Amino acid sequence: MRNVEISTITEAFLATLADDTTPRFRLLITQLARHLHAFARETELTHAEWRRALEFLMEAGRITTDERNEFVLISDVLGLSSLVDMTHSAPGGTPSSVLGPFHLLGAPALPYGGDLKADLAGDTIVVSGVVSNVLGEPVPNVTLEIWQTAPNGLYSNQDPAMDSMALRCQARTRSDGAYLFSTVRPAPYSVPTDGPVGDLLRGMGRHAWRPAHFHFIAEAKGYRTLVTEVFPRDDPYIDTDAVFGVREDLLIEFVRQDSLEALPAGLAIAEKIKAPFYSVQFDIVLAV
Amino acid sequence: MRNVEISTITEAFLATLADDTTPRFRLLITQLARHLHAFARETELTHAEWRRALEFLMEAGRITTDERNEFVLISDVLGLSSLVDMTHSAPGGTPSSVLGPFHLLGAPALPYGGDLKADLAGDTIVVSGVVSNVLGEPVPNVTLEIWQTAPNGLYSNQDPAMDSMALRCQARTRSDGAYLFSTVRPAPYSVPTDGPVGDLLRGMGRHAWRPAHFHFIAEAKGYRTLVTEVFPRDDPYIDTDAVFGVREDLLIEFVRQDSLEALPAGLAIAEKIKAPFYSVQFDIVLAV
Repeated sequence: MRNVEISTITEAFLATLADDTTPRFRLLITQLARHLHAFARETELTHAEWRRALEFLMEAGRITTDERNEFVLISDVLGLSSLVDMTHSAPGGTPSSVLGPFHLLGAPALPYGGDLKADLAGDTIVVSGVVSNVLGEPVPNVTLEIWQTAPNGLYSNQDPAMDSMALRCQARTRSDGAYLFSTVRPAPYSVPTDGPVGDLLRGMGRHAWRPAHFHFIAEAKGYRTLVTEVFPRDDPYIDTDAVFGVREDLLIEFVRQDSLEALPAGLAIAEKIKAPFYSVQFDIVLAV
Repeated sequence: MRNVEISTITEAFLATLADDTTPRFRLLITQLARHLHAFARETELTHAEWRRALEFLMEAGRITTDERNEFVLISDVLGLSSLVDMTHSAPGGTPSSVLGPFHLLGAPALPYGGDLKADLAGDTIVVSGVVSNVLGEPVPNVTLEIWQTAPNGLYSNQDPAMDSMALRCQARTRSDGAYLFSTVRPAPYSVPTDGPVGDLLRGMGRHAWRPAHFHFIAEAKGYRTLVTEVFPRDDPYIDTDAVFGVREDLLIEFVRQDSLEALPAGLAIAEKIKAPFYSVQFDIVLAV
Protein backbone atom coordinates (compact mmCIF):
# COMPACT_ATOMS: atom_id res chain seq x y z
CA MET A 1 0.00 0.00 0.00
CA ARG A 2 3.01 2.30 0.25
CA ASN A 3 2.85 2.73 -3.52
CA VAL A 4 -0.73 3.94 -3.59
CA GLU A 5 -1.26 6.42 -6.43
CA ILE A 6 -4.27 8.30 -7.76
CA SER A 7 -4.73 5.56 -10.33
CA THR A 8 -4.29 2.62 -7.94
CA ILE A 9 -6.05 3.66 -4.72
CA THR A 10 -9.34 2.04 -5.75
CA GLU A 11 -7.65 -1.34 -6.21
CA ALA A 12 -5.72 -0.81 -2.96
CA PHE A 13 -8.98 -0.14 -1.15
CA LEU A 14 -10.67 -3.20 -2.65
CA ALA A 15 -7.70 -5.36 -1.67
CA THR A 16 -8.57 -4.70 1.99
CA LEU A 17 -11.89 -6.58 1.63
CA ALA A 18 -11.60 -9.91 3.43
CA ASP A 19 -12.19 -13.03 1.34
CA ASP A 20 -15.10 -14.19 3.47
CA THR A 21 -17.37 -11.16 2.93
CA THR A 22 -20.67 -12.02 1.25
CA PRO A 23 -20.88 -11.54 -2.54
CA ARG A 24 -23.62 -8.90 -2.12
CA PHE A 25 -21.65 -6.82 0.40
CA ARG A 26 -18.58 -7.15 -1.82
CA LEU A 27 -20.54 -5.87 -4.82
CA LEU A 28 -21.95 -2.89 -2.91
CA ILE A 29 -18.60 -1.84 -1.41
CA THR A 30 -16.79 -2.35 -4.72
CA GLN A 31 -19.21 -0.21 -6.72
CA LEU A 32 -19.35 2.40 -3.94
CA ALA A 33 -15.57 2.79 -3.94
CA ARG A 34 -15.34 2.81 -7.75
CA HIS A 35 -17.96 5.52 -8.12
CA LEU A 36 -16.79 7.61 -5.16
CA HIS A 37 -13.19 7.55 -6.36
CA ALA A 38 -14.15 8.15 -9.99
CA PHE A 39 -16.17 11.17 -8.85
CA ALA A 40 -13.17 12.62 -7.00
CA ARG A 41 -10.77 11.86 -9.87
CA GLU A 42 -12.97 13.22 -12.66
CA THR A 43 -13.79 16.43 -10.79
CA GLU A 44 -10.32 16.79 -9.23
CA LEU A 45 -12.30 17.50 -6.06
CA THR A 46 -10.50 20.18 -4.02
CA HIS A 47 -9.93 20.17 -0.27
CA ALA A 48 -12.31 23.13 0.06
CA GLU A 49 -15.07 21.27 -1.82
CA TRP A 50 -14.41 18.11 0.19
CA ARG A 51 -14.74 20.08 3.44
CA ARG A 52 -17.96 21.69 2.17
CA ALA A 53 -19.41 18.26 1.38
CA LEU A 54 -18.52 17.02 4.88
CA GLU A 55 -20.07 20.12 6.44
CA PHE A 56 -23.21 19.44 4.41
CA LEU A 57 -23.46 15.95 5.92
CA MET A 58 -22.63 17.20 9.44
CA GLU A 59 -25.37 19.83 9.15
CA ALA A 60 -27.79 17.12 8.01
CA GLY A 61 -26.84 15.15 11.11
CA ARG A 62 -27.45 18.12 13.38
CA ILE A 63 -30.92 18.87 11.97
CA THR A 64 -32.12 15.24 11.87
CA THR A 65 -34.53 14.18 14.62
CA ASP A 66 -37.04 11.36 15.09
CA GLU A 67 -39.61 13.55 13.30
CA ARG A 68 -37.36 14.93 10.55
CA ASN A 69 -34.84 12.97 8.56
CA GLU A 70 -32.64 15.22 6.43
CA PHE A 71 -30.69 12.24 5.04
CA VAL A 72 -33.87 10.79 3.54
CA LEU A 73 -34.61 14.22 2.09
CA ILE A 74 -31.12 14.41 0.53
CA SER A 75 -31.78 11.05 -1.12
CA ASP A 76 -35.22 12.26 -2.24
CA VAL A 77 -34.13 15.52 -3.90
CA LEU A 78 -31.18 13.79 -5.60
CA GLY A 79 -33.58 11.34 -7.21
CA LEU A 80 -31.99 8.36 -5.45
CA SER A 81 -35.12 7.35 -3.50
CA SER A 82 -37.17 7.40 -6.67
CA LEU A 83 -34.57 5.39 -8.54
CA VAL A 84 -34.62 2.70 -5.84
CA ASP A 85 -38.43 2.73 -5.97
CA MET A 86 -38.51 2.28 -9.73
CA THR A 87 -35.85 -0.43 -9.64
CA HIS A 88 -38.03 -2.50 -7.33
CA SER A 89 -41.42 -1.74 -8.83
CA ALA A 90 -43.05 -5.09 -9.50
CA PRO A 91 -43.31 -5.73 -13.26
CA GLY A 92 -46.93 -5.55 -14.39
CA GLY A 93 -48.06 -3.94 -11.13
CA THR A 94 -48.84 -0.33 -10.24
CA PRO A 95 -45.52 1.63 -10.06
CA SER A 96 -44.18 2.42 -6.62
CA SER A 97 -43.25 5.90 -5.45
CA VAL A 98 -41.56 7.47 -2.42
CA LEU A 99 -42.79 6.68 1.08
CA GLY A 100 -41.82 10.14 2.29
CA PRO A 101 -41.07 11.20 5.87
CA PHE A 102 -44.64 11.69 7.13
CA HIS A 103 -45.89 8.11 7.41
CA LEU A 104 -47.12 7.13 10.90
CA LEU A 105 -47.74 3.63 12.18
CA GLY A 106 -51.11 2.81 13.74
CA ALA A 107 -53.55 4.70 11.51
CA PRO A 108 -57.18 3.83 12.42
CA ALA A 109 -59.27 1.36 10.41
CA LEU A 110 -61.82 2.96 8.04
CA PRO A 111 -64.83 0.92 6.87
CA TYR A 112 -65.89 0.85 3.17
CA GLY A 113 -67.35 4.27 2.34
CA GLY A 114 -65.91 5.89 5.45
CA ASP A 115 -64.96 9.56 5.74
CA LEU A 116 -61.67 11.35 6.46
CA LYS A 117 -62.78 14.94 5.77
CA ALA A 118 -64.64 15.42 9.07
CA ASP A 119 -65.10 19.17 9.57
CA LEU A 120 -62.14 20.35 7.48
CA ALA A 121 -62.96 23.17 5.05
CA GLY A 122 -62.21 22.41 1.39
CA ASP A 123 -63.53 20.49 -1.60
CA THR A 124 -65.10 17.11 -0.86
CA ILE A 125 -63.30 14.35 -2.73
CA VAL A 126 -64.76 10.89 -3.22
CA VAL A 127 -62.05 8.34 -3.95
CA SER A 128 -62.86 4.90 -5.30
CA GLY A 129 -61.09 2.13 -7.10
CA VAL A 130 -60.55 -1.57 -7.51
CA VAL A 131 -57.51 -3.57 -6.51
CA SER A 132 -56.75 -6.44 -8.86
CA ASN A 133 -53.86 -8.75 -9.62
CA VAL A 134 -51.89 -8.95 -12.86
CA LEU A 135 -54.40 -11.51 -14.20
CA GLY A 136 -57.17 -8.92 -13.79
CA GLU A 137 -58.79 -10.75 -10.87
CA PRO A 138 -60.07 -8.59 -8.00
CA VAL A 139 -58.12 -8.92 -4.74
CA PRO A 140 -60.31 -8.87 -1.60
CA ASN A 141 -59.12 -7.99 1.91
CA VAL A 142 -56.29 -5.71 0.78
CA THR A 143 -55.22 -3.32 3.53
CA LEU A 144 -54.92 0.16 2.03
CA GLU A 145 -53.05 2.56 4.23
CA ILE A 146 -53.78 6.09 3.01
CA TRP A 147 -52.47 9.47 4.24
CA GLN A 148 -52.49 13.01 2.87
CA THR A 149 -52.09 16.69 3.72
CA ALA A 150 -54.90 18.98 4.79
CA PRO A 151 -55.78 21.90 2.49
CA ASN A 152 -53.13 23.96 4.33
CA GLY A 153 -50.43 21.65 2.93
CA LEU A 154 -49.59 20.11 6.32
CA TYR A 155 -49.74 16.50 7.54
CA SER A 156 -51.25 15.76 10.95
CA ASN A 157 -47.75 15.31 12.41
CA GLN A 158 -46.72 18.78 11.20
CA ASP A 159 -49.73 20.72 12.48
CA PRO A 160 -50.41 20.83 16.24
CA ALA A 161 -53.95 22.04 15.49
CA MET A 162 -54.83 18.71 13.83
CA ASP A 163 -55.73 15.40 15.48
CA SER A 164 -52.66 13.18 15.46
CA MET A 165 -54.29 10.66 13.09
CA ALA A 166 -56.30 13.12 11.00
CA LEU A 167 -56.38 12.31 7.25
CA ARG A 168 -54.87 8.87 7.85
CA CYS A 169 -56.59 5.50 7.70
CA GLN A 170 -56.37 1.81 6.98
CA ALA A 171 -59.13 0.95 4.51
CA ARG A 172 -59.87 -2.56 3.23
CA THR A 173 -61.09 -3.87 -0.13
CA ARG A 174 -64.42 -5.70 -0.36
CA SER A 175 -64.80 -9.15 -1.88
CA ASP A 176 -64.99 -7.48 -5.32
CA GLY A 177 -61.69 -5.68 -4.72
CA ALA A 178 -63.39 -2.28 -4.38
CA TYR A 179 -62.54 0.48 -1.91
CA LEU A 180 -64.30 3.80 -1.31
CA PHE A 181 -63.86 6.78 1.00
CA SER A 182 -64.55 10.51 1.17
CA THR A 183 -61.96 13.09 2.11
CA VAL A 184 -60.78 16.66 1.51
CA ARG A 185 -58.63 17.84 -1.41
CA PRO A 186 -54.91 17.63 -0.52
CA ALA A 187 -52.60 20.56 -1.33
CA PRO A 188 -49.11 20.91 -2.78
CA TYR A 189 -46.41 21.59 -0.21
CA SER A 190 -42.74 22.49 0.05
CA VAL A 191 -40.18 20.08 1.47
CA PRO A 192 -38.30 21.69 4.40
CA THR A 193 -35.79 24.28 3.18
CA ASP A 194 -34.27 25.46 6.47
CA GLY A 195 -31.56 22.76 6.40
CA PRO A 196 -28.74 21.75 4.03
CA VAL A 197 -31.22 20.42 1.45
CA GLY A 198 -32.60 23.97 1.21
CA ASP A 199 -29.07 25.22 0.50
CA LEU A 200 -28.65 22.57 -2.18
CA LEU A 201 -31.96 23.40 -3.89
CA ARG A 202 -31.21 27.14 -3.81
CA GLY A 203 -27.72 26.43 -5.19
CA MET A 204 -29.27 24.49 -8.06
CA GLY A 205 -31.89 27.18 -8.66
CA ARG A 206 -34.68 24.64 -7.99
CA HIS A 207 -37.97 25.07 -6.12
CA ALA A 208 -38.87 22.78 -3.19
CA TRP A 209 -42.50 22.00 -4.07
CA ARG A 210 -44.24 18.69 -4.44
CA PRO A 211 -47.55 18.34 -6.31
CA ALA A 212 -50.55 17.44 -4.12
CA HIS A 213 -50.92 13.69 -3.61
CA PHE A 214 -52.44 10.81 -1.70
CA HIS A 215 -50.03 8.25 -0.25
CA PHE A 216 -51.03 4.58 -0.52
CA ILE A 217 -49.55 1.40 0.94
CA ALA A 218 -51.36 -1.66 -0.41
CA GLU A 219 -50.73 -4.90 1.44
CA ALA A 220 -52.32 -8.31 0.84
CA LYS A 221 -51.27 -11.84 1.67
CA GLY A 222 -49.43 -13.44 -1.23
CA TYR A 223 -48.68 -10.15 -3.02
CA ARG A 224 -45.74 -7.79 -3.03
CA THR A 225 -46.44 -4.76 -0.81
CA LEU A 226 -46.91 -1.60 -2.87
CA VAL A 227 -45.80 1.81 -1.56
CA THR A 228 -46.97 4.56 -3.87
CA GLU A 229 -48.58 7.97 -4.35
CA VAL A 230 -51.09 9.44 -6.79
CA PHE A 231 -51.10 12.99 -8.14
CA PRO A 232 -53.69 15.20 -9.85
CA ARG A 233 -52.77 15.52 -13.52
CA ASP A 234 -53.39 19.28 -13.52
CA ASP A 235 -51.27 20.14 -10.47
CA PRO A 236 -48.97 23.14 -11.10
CA TYR A 237 -45.95 21.12 -9.87
CA ILE A 238 -46.77 17.90 -11.73
CA ASP A 239 -43.74 18.24 -14.02
CA THR A 240 -41.29 19.55 -11.42
CA ASP A 241 -41.84 17.41 -8.30
CA ALA A 242 -38.91 18.18 -5.97
CA VAL A 243 -38.47 14.47 -5.20
CA PHE A 244 -39.12 12.90 -8.64
CA GLY A 245 -42.06 10.79 -7.46
CA VAL A 246 -44.50 11.37 -10.36
CA ARG A 247 -45.15 8.62 -12.94
CA GLU A 248 -47.65 8.70 -15.79
CA ASP A 249 -49.45 5.66 -14.32
CA LEU A 250 -49.89 7.48 -11.00
CA LEU A 251 -51.83 10.46 -12.38
CA ILE A 252 -55.44 10.91 -11.31
CA GLU A 253 -58.21 13.31 -12.29
CA PHE A 254 -60.34 15.29 -9.87
CA VAL A 255 -63.61 15.13 -11.85
CA ARG A 256 -66.06 17.86 -10.87
CA GLN A 257 -69.57 16.49 -10.27
CA ASP A 258 -72.39 19.00 -10.27
CA SER A 259 -75.07 16.46 -9.45
CA LEU A 260 -75.41 14.32 -6.33
CA GLU A 261 -76.64 11.52 -8.61
CA ALA A 262 -72.97 10.84 -9.29
CA LEU A 263 -72.39 9.89 -5.63
CA PRO A 264 -71.50 6.19 -5.35
CA ALA A 265 -73.56 4.09 -2.95
CA GLY A 266 -72.21 3.34 0.50
CA LEU A 267 -70.72 6.66 1.62
CA ALA A 268 -71.05 7.20 5.36
CA ILE A 269 -71.55 10.95 4.99
CA ALA A 270 -73.65 10.78 1.79
CA GLU A 271 -76.39 12.92 3.28
CA LYS A 272 -73.99 15.72 4.21
CA ILE A 273 -72.25 16.01 0.82
CA LYS A 274 -73.31 18.94 -1.33
CA ALA A 275 -72.68 19.52 -5.04
CA PRO A 276 -70.27 20.22 -6.49
CA PHE A 277 -67.98 17.50 -5.21
CA TYR A 278 -65.08 15.83 -6.99
CA SER A 279 -64.63 12.16 -7.76
CA VAL A 280 -61.31 10.39 -8.17
CA GLN A 281 -60.74 6.89 -9.44
CA PHE A 282 -57.51 5.04 -8.75
CA ASP A 283 -57.28 1.36 -9.59
CA ILE A 284 -54.35 -0.62 -8.26
CA VAL A 285 -52.65 -3.69 -9.68
CA LEU A 286 -50.74 -5.84 -7.20
CA ALA A 287 -47.91 -8.06 -8.40
CA VAL A 288 -46.44 -11.07 -6.65
CA MET B 1 -40.97 14.67 -15.47
CA ARG B 2 -44.06 12.47 -15.34
CA ASN B 3 -42.29 10.09 -17.69
CA VAL B 4 -39.26 9.58 -15.49
CA GLU B 5 -37.87 6.07 -15.88
CA ILE B 6 -34.88 4.24 -14.44
CA SER B 7 -32.95 5.12 -17.58
CA THR B 8 -33.99 8.80 -17.72
CA ILE B 9 -34.00 9.98 -14.10
CA THR B 10 -30.41 11.23 -14.25
CA GLU B 11 -31.20 13.50 -17.18
CA ALA B 12 -34.45 14.57 -15.48
CA PHE B 13 -32.46 15.50 -12.37
CA LEU B 14 -29.86 17.42 -14.38
CA ALA B 15 -32.61 19.30 -16.21
CA THR B 16 -33.58 20.91 -12.87
CA LEU B 17 -30.21 22.73 -12.69
CA ALA B 18 -30.79 26.42 -13.41
CA ASP B 19 -28.88 27.90 -16.35
CA ASP B 20 -27.09 30.46 -14.20
CA THR B 21 -25.28 28.01 -11.89
CA THR B 22 -21.50 28.26 -12.07
CA PRO B 23 -19.68 25.81 -14.37
CA ARG B 24 -17.83 24.28 -11.41
CA PHE B 25 -20.99 23.68 -9.35
CA ARG B 26 -22.67 22.27 -12.45
CA LEU B 27 -19.78 19.84 -12.99
CA LEU B 28 -19.81 18.66 -9.36
CA ILE B 29 -23.59 18.14 -9.23
CA THR B 30 -23.64 16.46 -12.63
CA GLN B 31 -20.93 13.96 -11.79
CA LEU B 32 -22.41 13.38 -8.32
CA ALA B 33 -25.81 12.50 -9.78
CA ARG B 34 -24.32 10.35 -12.54
CA HIS B 35 -22.22 8.30 -10.14
CA LEU B 36 -24.88 8.06 -7.42
CA HIS B 37 -27.52 6.93 -9.90
CA ALA B 38 -25.14 4.57 -11.69
CA PHE B 39 -24.30 3.01 -8.32
CA ALA B 40 -27.98 2.40 -7.55
CA ARG B 41 -28.72 1.10 -11.05
CA GLU B 42 -25.73 -1.23 -11.28
CA THR B 43 -26.30 -2.71 -7.83
CA GLU B 44 -30.11 -2.64 -8.07
CA LEU B 45 -29.89 -1.20 -4.57
CA THR B 46 -32.76 -2.52 -2.44
CA HIS B 47 -34.93 -0.52 -0.07
CA ALA B 48 -33.41 -2.41 2.87
CA GLU B 49 -29.87 -1.54 1.74
CA TRP B 50 -30.88 2.07 1.09
CA ARG B 51 -32.33 2.30 4.63
CA ARG B 52 -29.16 0.74 6.07
CA ALA B 53 -27.03 3.34 4.26
CA LEU B 54 -29.19 6.16 5.62
CA GLU B 55 -28.97 4.71 9.15
CA PHE B 56 -25.18 4.60 8.74
CA LEU B 57 -25.13 8.34 7.97
CA MET B 58 -27.62 9.12 10.78
CA GLU B 59 -25.45 7.21 13.24
CA ALA B 60 -22.40 9.15 12.00
CA GLY B 61 -24.34 12.35 12.68
CA ARG B 62 -25.24 11.25 16.20
CA ILE B 63 -21.64 10.37 17.17
CA THR B 64 -20.02 13.45 15.62
CA THR B 65 -18.96 16.21 18.03
CA ASP B 66 -16.54 19.12 17.92
CA GLU B 67 -13.80 16.70 19.00
CA ARG B 68 -14.77 13.74 16.86
CA ASN B 69 -15.82 13.89 13.23
CA GLU B 70 -17.14 10.54 12.01
CA PHE B 71 -17.81 11.93 8.51
CA VAL B 72 -14.12 12.75 8.07
CA LEU B 73 -13.33 9.23 9.27
CA ILE B 74 -15.74 7.71 6.73
CA SER B 75 -13.95 9.64 4.00
CA ASP B 76 -10.57 8.53 5.41
CA VAL B 77 -11.28 4.78 5.56
CA LEU B 78 -12.89 4.83 2.09
CA GLY B 79 -9.67 6.30 0.68
CA LEU B 80 -11.43 9.49 -0.44
CA SER B 81 -9.39 11.84 1.76
CA SER B 82 -6.16 10.34 0.48
CA LEU B 83 -7.33 10.58 -3.11
CA VAL B 84 -8.10 14.29 -2.67
CA ASP B 85 -4.68 14.74 -1.04
CA MET B 86 -2.88 13.03 -3.91
CA THR B 87 -4.87 14.93 -6.53
CA HIS B 88 -3.67 18.21 -5.07
CA SER B 89 -0.11 17.24 -4.18
CA ALA B 90 2.17 19.82 -5.77
CA PRO B 91 4.14 18.30 -8.67
CA GLY B 92 7.83 18.00 -7.78
CA GLY B 93 7.17 18.64 -4.09
CA THR B 94 6.93 16.28 -1.12
CA PRO B 95 3.62 14.33 -1.37
CA SER B 96 0.80 15.41 0.88
CA SER B 97 -1.06 13.08 3.25
CA VAL B 98 -4.12 13.25 5.48
CA LEU B 99 -4.43 16.03 8.08
CA GLY B 100 -6.35 13.72 10.41
CA PRO B 101 -8.72 14.75 13.18
CA PHE B 102 -6.18 15.53 15.94
CA HIS B 103 -4.65 18.80 14.71
CA LEU B 104 -4.93 21.69 17.17
CA LEU B 105 -4.39 25.36 16.41
CA GLY B 106 -1.97 27.35 18.57
CA ALA B 107 0.88 24.88 19.12
CA PRO B 108 3.84 26.59 20.89
CA ALA B 109 6.96 27.78 19.03
CA LEU B 110 10.00 25.50 19.36
CA PRO B 111 13.50 26.91 18.75
CA TYR B 112 16.06 25.05 16.56
CA GLY B 113 17.21 21.99 18.51
CA GLY B 114 14.30 22.19 20.96
CA ASP B 115 12.78 19.22 22.77
CA LEU B 116 9.24 17.72 22.81
CA LYS B 117 10.01 14.55 24.80
CA ALA B 118 10.12 16.25 28.21
CA ASP B 119 9.76 13.51 30.84
CA LEU B 120 7.86 10.98 28.70
CA ALA B 121 9.22 7.42 28.91
CA GLY B 122 10.28 5.90 25.58
CA ASP B 123 13.04 6.00 22.99
CA THR B 124 14.62 9.38 22.34
CA ILE B 125 14.26 10.36 18.70
CA VAL B 126 16.31 13.12 17.08
CA VAL B 127 14.59 14.44 13.97
CA SER B 128 16.43 16.62 11.47
CA GLY B 129 16.07 17.65 7.88
CA VAL B 130 16.34 20.38 5.31
CA VAL B 131 13.49 22.17 3.58
CA SER B 132 14.28 23.12 0.00
CA ASN B 133 12.39 24.19 -3.10
CA VAL B 134 12.10 22.28 -6.38
CA LEU B 135 15.30 23.97 -7.62
CA GLY B 136 17.19 22.44 -4.70
CA GLU B 137 17.64 25.79 -2.92
CA PRO B 138 17.18 25.79 0.87
CA VAL B 139 14.08 27.61 2.14
CA PRO B 140 14.64 29.61 5.34
CA ASN B 141 11.94 30.68 7.79
CA VAL B 142 9.59 27.81 7.00
CA THR B 143 7.07 27.25 9.80
CA LEU B 144 6.92 23.51 10.52
CA GLU B 145 3.93 22.52 12.58
CA ILE B 146 4.55 19.05 13.99
CA TRP B 147 2.35 16.79 16.14
CA GLN B 148 2.43 13.13 17.12
CA THR B 149 1.15 10.53 19.58
CA ALA B 150 2.82 9.64 22.84
CA PRO B 151 4.15 6.07 23.21
CA ASN B 152 0.69 5.07 24.48
CA GLY B 153 -0.74 5.82 21.02
CA LEU B 154 -2.72 8.86 22.19
CA TYR B 155 -2.57 12.50 21.14
CA SER B 156 -2.62 15.22 23.80
CA ASN B 157 -6.28 15.92 23.05
CA GLN B 158 -7.19 12.28 23.64
CA ASP B 159 -5.38 11.80 26.95
CA PRO B 160 -6.45 13.91 29.96
CA ALA B 161 -3.17 12.96 31.68
CA MET B 162 -1.14 14.87 29.05
CA ASP B 163 -0.57 18.61 28.80
CA SER B 164 -2.94 20.02 26.20
CA MET B 165 -0.07 20.99 23.86
CA ALA B 166 2.26 18.08 24.63
CA LEU B 167 4.08 16.67 21.58
CA ARG B 168 3.00 19.61 19.42
CA CYS B 169 5.11 22.52 18.21
CA GLN B 170 5.78 25.11 15.57
CA ALA B 171 9.45 24.82 14.58
CA ARG B 172 11.19 27.07 12.05
CA THR B 173 13.94 26.43 9.52
CA ARG B 174 17.28 28.26 9.80
CA SER B 175 18.79 30.30 6.98
CA ASP B 176 20.23 27.05 5.56
CA GLY B 177 16.75 25.46 5.51
CA ALA B 178 17.60 23.08 8.38
CA TYR B 179 15.35 22.09 11.29
CA LEU B 180 16.14 19.95 14.33
CA PHE B 181 14.28 18.72 17.41
CA SER B 182 14.26 15.86 19.89
CA THR B 183 11.17 13.91 20.83
CA VAL B 184 9.84 10.50 21.84
CA ARG B 185 9.01 7.60 19.49
CA PRO B 186 5.37 7.79 18.36
CA ALA B 187 3.22 4.63 18.37
CA PRO B 188 0.68 3.06 16.00
CA TYR B 189 -2.94 3.57 16.99
CA SER B 190 -6.42 2.48 16.05
CA VAL B 191 -8.97 4.87 14.57
CA PRO B 192 -12.18 4.91 16.68
CA THR B 193 -14.23 1.75 16.13
CA ASP B 194 -17.22 2.40 18.42
CA GLY B 195 -19.18 4.19 15.67
CA PRO B 196 -20.47 3.29 12.21
CA VAL B 197 -16.96 3.30 10.75
CA GLY B 198 -16.13 0.47 13.15
CA ASP B 199 -19.12 -1.46 11.78
CA LEU B 200 -17.91 -0.83 8.24
CA LEU B 201 -14.37 -1.97 8.97
CA ARG B 202 -15.60 -5.11 10.76
CA GLY B 203 -17.96 -5.78 7.84
CA MET B 204 -15.03 -5.58 5.44
CA GLY B 205 -12.85 -7.73 7.67
CA ARG B 206 -10.32 -4.88 7.98
CA HIS B 207 -8.31 -3.73 11.01
CA ALA B 208 -8.47 -0.11 12.19
CA TRP B 209 -4.76 0.56 12.75
CA ARG B 210 -2.55 3.30 11.44
CA PRO B 211 1.24 3.00 11.40
CA ALA B 212 3.09 5.36 13.78
CA HIS B 213 3.75 8.76 12.23
CA PHE B 214 4.73 12.39 12.67
CA HIS B 215 2.34 14.98 11.21
CA PHE B 216 3.90 17.96 9.43
CA ILE B 217 2.43 21.17 8.05
CA ALA B 218 5.10 23.18 6.22
CA GLU B 219 4.23 26.79 5.45
CA ALA B 220 6.44 29.46 3.86
CA LYS B 221 5.66 32.66 2.05
CA GLY B 222 5.55 32.14 -1.72
CA TYR B 223 5.16 28.33 -1.49
CA ARG B 224 2.19 26.01 -1.50
CA THR B 225 1.38 24.84 2.04
CA LEU B 226 2.21 21.16 2.54
CA VAL B 227 0.12 18.94 4.85
CA THR B 228 1.76 15.56 5.25
CA GLU B 229 2.87 12.72 7.52
CA VAL B 230 5.95 10.50 7.72
CA PHE B 231 6.01 6.84 8.71
CA PRO B 232 8.73 4.42 9.89
CA ARG B 233 9.46 2.01 7.06
CA ASP B 234 9.47 -0.99 9.41
CA ASP B 235 6.11 -0.29 11.11
CA PRO B 236 3.88 -3.41 11.29
CA TYR B 237 0.98 -1.48 9.70
CA ILE B 238 3.02 0.25 6.98
CA ASP B 239 1.29 -1.71 4.20
CA THR B 240 -2.22 -1.68 5.68
CA ASP B 241 -2.79 1.88 6.94
CA ALA B 242 -6.52 2.13 7.71
CA VAL B 243 -6.70 5.55 6.01
CA PHE B 244 -4.37 5.01 2.99
CA GLY B 245 -1.97 7.80 3.99
CA VAL B 246 1.36 6.05 3.35
CA ARG B 247 3.48 6.96 0.30
CA GLU B 248 6.95 5.64 -0.57
CA ASP B 249 8.36 9.19 -0.43
CA LEU B 250 7.03 9.61 3.12
CA LEU B 251 8.90 6.67 4.65
CA ILE B 252 11.57 7.38 7.26
CA GLU B 253 14.09 5.22 9.13
CA PHE B 254 14.61 5.23 12.86
CA VAL B 255 18.41 4.69 12.83
CA ARG B 256 19.75 3.31 16.09
CA GLN B 257 22.78 5.27 17.33
CA ASP B 258 24.91 3.59 19.96
CA SER B 259 27.32 6.48 20.32
CA LEU B 260 26.58 10.00 21.47
CA GLU B 261 29.10 11.19 18.86
CA ALA B 262 26.22 10.86 16.39
CA LEU B 263 24.27 13.62 18.20
CA PRO B 264 23.92 16.69 15.97
CA ALA B 265 25.03 20.03 17.41
CA GLY B 266 22.44 22.37 18.85
CA LEU B 267 20.12 20.07 20.81
CA ALA B 268 18.70 21.77 23.89
CA ILE B 269 18.74 18.56 25.94
CA ALA B 270 22.02 17.19 24.47
CA GLU B 271 23.47 16.64 27.95
CA LYS B 272 20.51 14.53 29.10
CA ILE B 273 20.39 12.19 26.08
CA LYS B 274 21.84 8.73 26.65
CA ALA B 275 22.83 6.11 24.06
CA PRO B 276 21.21 4.39 22.36
CA PHE B 277 19.04 7.02 20.77
CA TYR B 278 17.48 7.02 17.29
CA SER B 279 17.98 9.53 14.52
CA VAL B 280 15.47 10.31 11.79
CA GLN B 281 16.04 12.39 8.70
CA PHE B 282 13.16 13.86 6.73
CA ASP B 283 13.90 16.38 4.00
CA ILE B 284 11.01 18.36 2.57
CA VAL B 285 10.59 19.86 -0.89
CA LEU B 286 8.15 22.76 -1.17
CA ALA B 287 6.49 23.50 -4.49
CA VAL B 288 4.91 26.77 -5.56
